[in-house]
Amino acid sequence: MKCLYFDEALTFIKGYAQPRREKGEALIKIHYAAICNTDKEIIKGYKGFRGILGHEFVGVVEEAEDPAYIGKRVVGEINLGCRECECCRQGHSNHCKNRRVLGITNKDGAFAEYITLPLENLHFVPDVVTDLEAVFAEPLAAALEITNQCHIKPTHKVAIVGNGKLGQLIGQVLSLTGCDLTILGRSEKTLFLLKNKAKIELISQATYESYFDVVVDATGNQDGLRYAQEIVRPMGIVVLKSTYHDQALLNPTLWVIKEITLLGSRCGPLDAALRLLEKRLVSMEGLIGGVFTLEEYQAAFDEQNSLKSVFKISDNKE
Amino acid sequence: MKCLYFDEALTFIKGYAQPRREKGEALIKIHYAAICNTDKEIIKGYKGFRGILGHEFVGVVEEAEDPAYIGKRVVGEINLGCRECECCRQGHSNHCKNRRVLGITNKDGAFAEYITLPLENLHFVPDVVTDLEAVFAEPLAAALEITNQCHIKPTHKVAIVGNGKLGQLIGQVLSLTGCDLTILGRSEKTLFLLKNKAKIELISQATYESYFDVVVDATGNQDGLRYAQEIVRPMGIVVLKSTYHDQALLNPTLWVIKEITLLGSRCGPLDAALRLLEKRLVSMEGLIGGVFTLEEYQAAFDEQNSLKSVFKISDNKE
Repeated sequence: MKCLYFDEALTFIKGYAQPRREKGEALIKIHYAAICNTDKEIIKGYKGFRGILGHEFVGVVEEAEDPAYIGKRVVGEINLGCRECECCRQGHSNHCKNRRVLGITNKDGAFAEYITLPLENLHFVPDVVTDLEAVFAEPLAAALEITNQCHIKPTHKVAIVGNGKLGQLIGQVLSLTGCDLTILGRSEKTLFLLKNKAKIELISQATYESYFDVVVDATGNQDGLRYAQEIVRPMGIVVLKSTYHDQALLNPTLWVIKEITLLGSRCGPLDAALRLLEKRLVSMEGLIGGVFTLEEYQAAFDEQNSLKSVFKISDNKE
Repeated sequence: MKCLYFDEALTFIKGYAQPRREKGEALIKIHYAAICNTDKEIIKGYKGFRGILGHEFVGVVEEAEDPAYIGKRVVGEINLGCRECECCRQGHSNHCKNRRVLGITNKDGAFAEYITLPLENLHFVPDVVTDLEAVFAEPLAAALEITNQCHIKPTHKVAIVGNGKLGQLIGQVLSLTGCDLTILGRSEKTLFLLKNKAKIELISQATYESYFDVVVDATGNQDGLRYAQEIVRPMGIVVLKSTYHDQALLNPTLWVIKEITLLGSRCGPLDAALRLLEKRLVSMEGLIGGVFTLEEYQAAFDEQNSLKSVFKISDNKE
């Protein structure tokens, strides 16, 4: 099968062996898979992964022990726990120390014609949700992890720093709380996409200081946290959504003095993400920057427009 | 009056002018004042303070507009808000941007025969609490800020990293929750003081990894947070109590992946601290390393025994 394989460099491979289902797994034919910032960080060296990249996908189940899954469109939880440790037994397999992660840790990913995933990781995609919407389910779930972890009140002043792909999904999710939402970014063009969801402002023109109840860092770089700690109020919350390869020089004493809370936030509830898509409470319109074939991977990864690059790998009609 | 004045270096001054009460303030004769790690950090350059050091004290009110205060033994909240900003209006003057802080920011401190503080900052010391217990009220309140901010459950596995002065008070406070408490330190001698309050263990011999529900960093240095993030479980809480002059090279991506919460924690409720002392729920026995006169400041600051150095400045009998 065709795939994008990473081993210090990214390569397109035409004749890679199709993955074989382990017990309890489904074989899934990928329709679309999208590039996440984490993929770009992996290419820079984050995680030391070797294998097929890609963890945001929508596809159709071709093989499974349970016939109810066959032919169903699915998205999937990307963490595969060991099922034995305390985390797994408590239902937190996404934090299992020995977990494999689709396209990130010891599990071939979705920039390929086929993947396998355990049935328990799969969520059926409602009929009204298109493939190009469903491919956003995983990052949308990551956005929902914020409201899953943290009580955002309708009376809160909330800022999102960073208006990249994840920042935009977070903007849509947090606007649903009714909170007083400001999105601070570097690009007027992508900020514009959020103009009906929140106040939008260029960081270079903003003058906030100790102002927001909650600040979400979705910049994907270490400047995000430094800026967030300035604009959050004393006793406020900074939600960390950025993962990056480098270490950062930081001043934790400021967090003590200001008594702020830093909240690490990662993968979230896929079922809730699908509900938002099904109910049309979020819109993925305008968020796709380009649809590429796997062969066009270089162009897809080079895209710098803060929008989502998506691989079309197969589709419903095939 | 006698005092310890800091201006790039610490000096004993014999003839410093006695402070004058501002409106609403009491004039307090200091009985005892204790050295805090923050004082040592200020001497290293933290905060850029110039003036009389010292913010942990017990004394007696000599002058006040309200006669009910005269002759009363008191301890005091160290933050003086502007009374006008949003923080102050919401009762959080300890986070006022323009606050003065006793012996730390724009307000002469307690390593002196007299200080002034607003009446609203003062708390009467119950008769059963001795001067040498009351001088611990301020750091004991800082320890209580942890349970004030964070729900420590009796079923939680909790670790305190660092068994210095603050770590020991935190150990006493957290042991009252009934939680499964482990204190990890570098010195067997001071760990021994806590042996009836918690499991005690040398960091060099400990092998915890992703184990504790809550970890309190009370090391006073940047290694504390790095160690805490290793031994806290996924989705656990790291309480930050360390303030230090330097920046730290850290990896926030680990916090995102592990979805841990970092909680900055500073000054706490003095009234609750006095209740614990009054009810004999905590004991300051063995925590004082030496009692010094102000003239002996060099020896007091050089003390390296992880116990509290206290200045005796006057006493009840004088």
